Amino acid sequence: MTAEDRIRALIEDRIPATAGKDAAALSSPYTADAVLFDAVGPLRSAGTDAQAHRVAEWLSAYRGPIDYQIRDLEITAGEQVAFCHYLYRVGGTMTDGTVVGMWLRSTVCLRQAGQDWLVTHEHTSVPFDGATGAASLTLGP
Amino acid sequence: MTAEDRIRALIEDRIPATAGKDAAALSSPYTADAVLFDAVGPLRSAGTDAQAHRVAEWLSAYRGPIDYQIRDLEITAGEQVAFCHYLYRVGGTMTDGTVVGMWLRSTVCLRQAGQDWLVTHEHTSVPFDGATGAASLTLGP
Repeated sequence: MTAEDRIRALIEDRIPATAGKDAAALSSPYTADAVLFDAVGPLRSAGTDAQAHRVAEWLSAYRGPIDYQIRDLEITAGEQVAFCHYLYRVGGTMTDGTVVGMWLRSTVCLRQAGQDWLVTHEHTSVPFDGATGAASLTLGP
Repeated sequence: MTAEDRIRALIEDRIPATAGKDAAALSSPYTADAVLFDAVGPLRSAGTDAQAHRVAEWLSAYRGPIDYQIRDLEITAGEQVAFCHYLYRVGGTMTDGTVVGMWLRSTVCLRQAGQDWLVTHEHTSVPFDGATGAASLTLGP
């Protein structure tokens, strides 16, 4: 299994883990000091507690299953250092009954740890409209 | 000069290049197929034309010099592959006279090309407020 195969599996594992609201699976492949630039919240947070908190908050905002689609995944892997980026769509019914669906983009940066790869940095966002200051929540790829 | 030194210099060169509105310097260290997840605009764009267009648009939006501060730059460099991330504040007077200043975060992913490093992917954003849908333009580190 190449480094690229391992990283592809790590990212694609997010699809069933999100559908199944498996917080433990979604939080497992991060280093203890991972730096997070998340789509909502502060500019920057760090550490597995912050990551686990965000995952729990995110999963609990949905009433039912969460649909999670990935596209345009591109992986660049060196000997010990790798990064990848992709677009994803997340959709479902929120706890208040609102049906949502939106596209975001994510950049995931990793280091090799033995046979495995761990995420040391992740950046997820949507762009915003400079004229209105609104987040662009209805874009598509 | 280590890989980390070279990448730090590439990022820190953005400070005088932005202050001096040097579009050529800001556009030079990208591969022809670099994938951009920018703070405004579409979800994703690619290529040096897209990058140069964004830089020109950005620089021309300011009437005078642009203040550009960087903090929390962290670099991870392997043999051929590297990534870094940082927070930055951009400020100045727009062409319509509005004085702006905001913090963003950026993730820059690179590949070695001979002695140099080139950016193959860059992700820049601010988070948004999930309750209002507004981009969070007044956050600080």
